[in-house]
Amino acid sequence: MTDTRCWFHCHAATMKGGHYSVIEDAAILARGERIAWIGPRDALPPGDCQAVDLGGAWVTPGLIDCHTHLVFAGERSAEFELRLEGASYAEIAAHGGGILSTLRATRAASEEQLLDGALRRARQLLRDGVTCLEVKSGYGLDLPGERKQLRVARQLAERLPLTVRTTCLAAHAVPPEYAGRADAYIEHVCAELLPALADEGLVDAVDAYCEHLAFSPEQVERLFRAAEALGLPVKLHAEQLSALGGTRVAARHRALSADHLEYAGEADVAALAKAGTVAVLLPAAFYLLDESRRPPVEALRRHAVPMALASDLNPGTAPVLSLRLMLAMACTSFGLTAEEALAGVTLHAARALGLADDHGSLEPGKYADFVAWDIHRPAELAYWLGGELSRRIVFHGKEVSHG
Amino acid sequence: MTDTRCWFHCHAATMKGGHYSVIEDAAILARGERIAWIGPRDALPPGDCQAVDLGGAWVTPGLIDCHTHLVFAGERSAEFELRLEGASYAEIAAHGGGILSTLRATRAASEEQLLDGALRRARQLLRDGVTCLEVKSGYGLDLPGERKQLRVARQLAERLPLTVRTTCLAAHAVPPEYAGRADAYIEHVCAELLPALADEGLVDAVDAYCEHLAFSPEQVERLFRAAEALGLPVKLHAEQLSALGGTRVAARHRALSADHLEYAGEADVAALAKAGTVAVLLPAAFYLLDESRRPPVEALRRHAVPMALASDLNPGTAPVLSLRLMLAMACTSFGLTAEEALAGVTLHAARALGLADDHGSLEPGKYADFVAWDIHRPAELAYWLGGELSRRIVFHGKEVSHG
Ligand SMILES: [Zn+2]
Ligand SMILES: [Zn+2]
Repeated sequence: MTDTRCWFHCHAATMKGGHYSVIEDAAILARGERIAWIGPRDALPPGDCQAVDLGGAWVTPGLIDCHTHLVFAGERSAEFELRLEGASYAEIAAHGGGILSTLRATRAASEEQLLDGALRRARQLLRDGVTCLEVKSGYGLDLPGERKQLRVARQLAERLPLTVRTTCLAAHAVPPEYAGRADAYIEHVCAELLPALADEGLVDAVDAYCEHLAFSPEQVERLFRAAEALGLPVKLHAEQLSALGGTRVAARHRALSADHLEYAGEADVAALAKAGTVAVLLPAAFYLLDESRRPPVEALRRHAVPMALASDLNPGTAPVLSLRLMLAMACTSFGLTAEEALAGVTLHAARALGLADDHGSLEPGKYADFVAWDIHRPAELAYWLGGELSRRIVFHGKEVSHG
Repeated sequence: MTDTRCWFHCHAATMKGGHYSVIEDAAILARGERIAWIGPRDALPPGDCQAVDLGGAWVTPGLIDCHTHLVFAGERSAEFELRLEGASYAEIAAHGGGILSTLRATRAASEEQLLDGALRRARQLLRDGVTCLEVKSGYGLDLPGERKQLRVARQLAERLPLTVRTTCLAAHAVPPEYAGRADAYIEHVCAELLPALADEGLVDAVDAYCEHLAFSPEQVERLFRAAEALGLPVKLHAEQLSALGGTRVAARHRALSADHLEYAGEADVAALAKAGTVAVLLPAAFYLLDESRRPPVEALRRHAVPMALASDLNPGTAPVLSLRLMLAMACTSFGLTAEEALAGVTLHAARALGLADDHGSLEPGKYADFVAWDIHRPAELAYWLGGELSRRIVFHGKEVSHG
């Protein structure tokens, strides 16, 4: 039997050549794990294949969630309730809430328990069309805790039809053991924690949280130098709640991405453009924290900075189980167009993970990762709020079972 | 074999007695379609039953979507895109968009085509825990068109494990045949359209859109008198975009519900309280239209007006396929607590449909309609954005298949 598969009777939003583009009445050929050919059905090259009728569905590249914190223990719905009753973040933290509550639960959990929760959340993303995702550590904040999270992230890729990229976010917060000694903690991360985890092959990239309540641009600078010494690409949580200068640090280090960016200004955006850094927009945290300052979408367009979108899946500010929902929220909250939103979870998300050679568009040579959707127009992916619109999901050339 | 079923190993948020209440380690007995007993598992009365282990899940009453326009043809994602590019409603209407575009598509569709689309949307709501929903007409705006929509609504209940209530919303907009003659159209609805549909058994309640661009309080008044003459309860789209006085008309007629209410004031709320009318809040349209004026939640609390939540599912302002998502949005956008949000899609939604005797809480004598959720705390229903959290759905005492 041939290992060539052919999907036909569909339309494709291919993202080929780095922008939104469409083939009506398309066919897709895969040989093994990769796309061998894609084009109009009537130009399909002759040859044997196992053919699948997609019944007129729209096909997009598999969705890519390029910013998640999905390996954690505990949930924080009680904190969500306190916030609705008017409690401030400071009050919640004073009662043991916030990141530190997830830290305690994650440190206490076994690897099996962590994997169990992470699998459940990853399956939710998957059924909604995600075939590739990034997972950050950052709830261990010590060597065993960060290792445990990253090992679980690696196991997700073994257990599910998903590509997983790991990011070491040991610089997520100052752990209680280093309270008041952020510099010493960064020194520990640079000298011991990060080299050890990199050596174990657990780290695909390095990230930090650059904010008053976390780390300064100078501390991030030191971390990034350590990452570069290890040959690891960097990315940064920058300018979410204030304009601290993280975005320019990220640009200086040619970061894969700078994420959040609500407070980034024109000069920050120009720096991203020059560096080739992707802007990752995170509409769920913006919405749930009831923020009013929006990321500089107009400036990002003007400077042609690629905009990716992600769930930011985390138990505090973004308990998100659907990446597709982020398309609607980015359109409504940030004013993206439906086409920009779709590019943001395919093409540009691949680039934010350093995976653009193999992922993010439907082109010969790339992985055959795609979703057939039960819609009439691609814009419907951003239009419907909730629901499950994926009809079939293909990962590396093979149909994925849905449940 | 006994027709008594028993579900155990669960916790229940019962809503018994008209407010949020909980039974830990609960058991639920159903005889036929109704709940025979519910209480702590160790107090379960002896006797034969088919027992089902719920594995520690949380059980809530089946969710009730008390305000939908889910029978329509066409979708309006192109209009959504125009809006994102800055087009105003007036511009969209001038290009043939808005309600009239759905009107044209719905009039042109066959009953089978309408049913097919409605079934797909209703299945999406169902898989997310809805066991009862309301369906409005209002995209026909003539006798054959309104009849077709309401017949499809009735068929949903025959085809799916759902209770369906129909609402005649012939007063949704002035149809093109009556352009500039709203009074004459209302006269036609009162004298011919509504009596005919009521006579065919297609109408459970009567609704209108009271707004500058639709009908005045005086026109609504006339319609409500006609409804009352036919013995039909009323409800109203009121005070969504301006303070026009519809809420007080609704209260005067002891409406089941007044819906939207962004512009309702203290006196309006007092009138609702006195009339026993439910306030139905619709967070999706508020979010998607980027509104800033919120419904008077504080005043509704002070006057003890029951607050229901609904999807408002419609192709223009609320393309919503998950009622559960409305819990999160009502909490974040309107400041409801998670408990208020849950009561809003169970207890108070049942009341907004006149179904509180048989629906909306887990109590002996009511229908055994409930959902077992994959969560640790009921507040998680409002906390997670997206995803599918229902583990099992029971309708009228029988397990519903999920797909
Ligand atoms: Zn993050
Ligand atoms: Zn409505």
